[in-house]
Amino acid sequence: MVPTVEWKNGAVRLLDQSRLPEHVEFLDCQDYRAVADAIRELKVRGAPAIGVTAALGVALGAQGVSATGFPAFAQALVPVCDHLAATRPTAVNLFWAIDRMKKKLASLSAQTVPAAKAALLAEGQAILEEDIALCKAMGRHGAELIASGQTVLTHCNAGALATAGYGTALGVIRAAWEQGKKIQVIADETRPVLQGARLTAWELMQDKIPVTLITDNMAGSLMRQGKIQLCVVGADRIAANGDVANKIGTYSVAVLAKAHNIPFYVAAPYSTIDLKTKTGADIPIEQRNPLEVTTIHGSHPVAPVGVAVYNPAFDVTPAELITGIITERGVFKPAELAKQFQS
Amino acid sequence: MVPTVEWKNGAVRLLDQSRLPEHVEFLDCQDYRAVADAIRELKVRGAPAIGVTAALGVALGAQGVSATGFPAFAQALVPVCDHLAATRPTAVNLFWAIDRMKKKLASLSAQTVPAAKAALLAEGQAILEEDIALCKAMGRHGAELIASGQTVLTHCNAGALATAGYGTALGVIRAAWEQGKKIQVIADETRPVLQGARLTAWELMQDKIPVTLITDNMAGSLMRQGKIQLCVVGADRIAANGDVANKIGTYSVAVLAKAHNIPFYVAAPYSTIDLKTKTGADIPIEQRNPLEVTTIHGSHPVAPVGVAVYNPAFDVTPAELITGIITERGVFKPAELAKQFQS
Repeated sequence: MVPTVEWKNGAVRLLDQSRLPEHVEFLDCQDYRAVADAIRELKVRGAPAIGVTAALGVALGAQGVSATGFPAFAQALVPVCDHLAATRPTAVNLFWAIDRMKKKLASLSAQTVPAAKAALLAEGQAILEEDIALCKAMGRHGAELIASGQTVLTHCNAGALATAGYGTALGVIRAAWEQGKKIQVIADETRPVLQGARLTAWELMQDKIPVTLITDNMAGSLMRQGKIQLCVVGADRIAANGDVANKIGTYSVAVLAKAHNIPFYVAAPYSTIDLKTKTGADIPIEQRNPLEVTTIHGSHPVAPVGVAVYNPAFDVTPAELITGIITERGVFKPAELAKQFQS
Repeated sequence: MVPTVEWKNGAVRLLDQSRLPEHVEFLDCQDYRAVADAIRELKVRGAPAIGVTAALGVALGAQGVSATGFPAFAQALVPVCDHLAATRPTAVNLFWAIDRMKKKLASLSAQTVPAAKAALLAEGQAILEEDIALCKAMGRHGAELIASGQTVLTHCNAGALATAGYGTALGVIRAAWEQGKKIQVIADETRPVLQGARLTAWELMQDKIPVTLITDNMAGSLMRQGKIQLCVVGADRIAANGDVANKIGTYSVAVLAKAHNIPFYVAAPYSTIDLKTKTGADIPIEQRNPLEVTTIHGSHPVAPVGVAVYNPAFDVTPAELITGIITERGVFKPAELAKQFQS
């Protein structure tokens, strides 16, 4: 796999996911504002990838500060962090990563500014490397839930492209595949932005993992025909009670899975678990541009001009519909999460 | 509303629905093969509209027969009927309409060929006019189920565009609106062919009935938020036990409606009820071109080249998920249908 996000030649290099699968192109962000734009415009997306990218964005912003004393340096990073945090409201990994960079910054007050800049860059890179390690740990735990011969449905893209690499939900699938299990994947196309069609299908094809693409509204019918044995998705934020915010359509998949007695799993690292948010009702849900629904790629119309549109980017799946949450520490019932991750 | 299908200047004139909503264009079919092509290519679609179009296609085929004796005339219509019947397998109205034309033909053996041609055209036009009358009757019965202030979800297009006029599911909505009820409509976009986005939204906007477009995967989340009070859809075939084949995604809507205690209605005329088909398992489900899923309008790619695709045009909703079936004779429980329509 090509890297989703990396630090390269003093810039944040992003694989431009808005151009996939037709174009494999990279975006070199020389300025933290370009990083924020890329997050806002979904050039990089997926909760863990957004977190890693924002951390490197803070590091990038730090490199550009001309102050020579620490207090001025730290002060100059406040608007950088605020600007990056204002890009997308739902995925908590964004705020988690920026907070972690702020904490690192606070620990550097005895350092010279050049040393602090280097330390912030190292912290961003540590977050990136940790993200891949977390995905691999989730993969090990989650792969045990999948039996050879099963077909697994996933929604949106919770893959290498949604993380620094390997993936959360697709990390689980990838680990099962790497263990030699003969599995098939059904990918929901995931309207409106088509992350399933454009990203999950592409990513799995790159790894030669068998994948079949469906439109979102076919999942129920396939379940009724006994063609799906397990569902696994990622998460943008998990509340303390185990409610999960994830890509719009996740809730419908969970209801359908329940109605067909199919296990429904969520895979996410600790940075997605937000114990300060009590329940899913407290998670802010981003409303996006109606053009995502009324056009394809912003240019090809698929609906009448001027039609009213509802376009929430996410929905909330209540804990009671979730069989288990796959984390780097193991697989837990939603109700067990708060105890496991209280620290 | 512009007419979906009509007999005009010796041709079958169709509104080309594959061009909507950007282009309002008509297709004058001078030959029954062009009518068949239009059905196959979804230029006309919707079970009742397909039936009416096929009937007029048989009439059009009859006008072109040069035989002067009735036996040769009748014989020449066999391949015409077969050709029109081979276009699409699921909607039973197609076969019903062709059978009705065949019965009419059989009744004309004492007539001259010119008189038989005229009688077949009159029969096709009678089927067209009857279709509109059936829709209005369904509208009267179904409108009683909708209260002012409610929001109604519909899937695909079961509107004037899916019939000779007025619509089945949208006929029910239209009748409630015409009675002065303040209702709102949520239209599922209905991937892959986007009949909800392209046709239902357009049709309701033409009539100034408030409509909000969503992607298919948003319906569950809206139901959970209490924003939908009733679902009504059309049907392509209803089996004797009340199972309903309709546009792919209908089954998911029905499961979601059940999970949220929202009534789920199907609106269809007697020609959609197929008592010879015992259950939904016996209804043939058309598989369509993967390009419908991997591209928009056949040209704009939304998925990797060569990805495997599952693309059934329809699914089956079991009778137990259906609150009632709205027909021209009244609203019935699925289990009551066979008794009501046995004749």
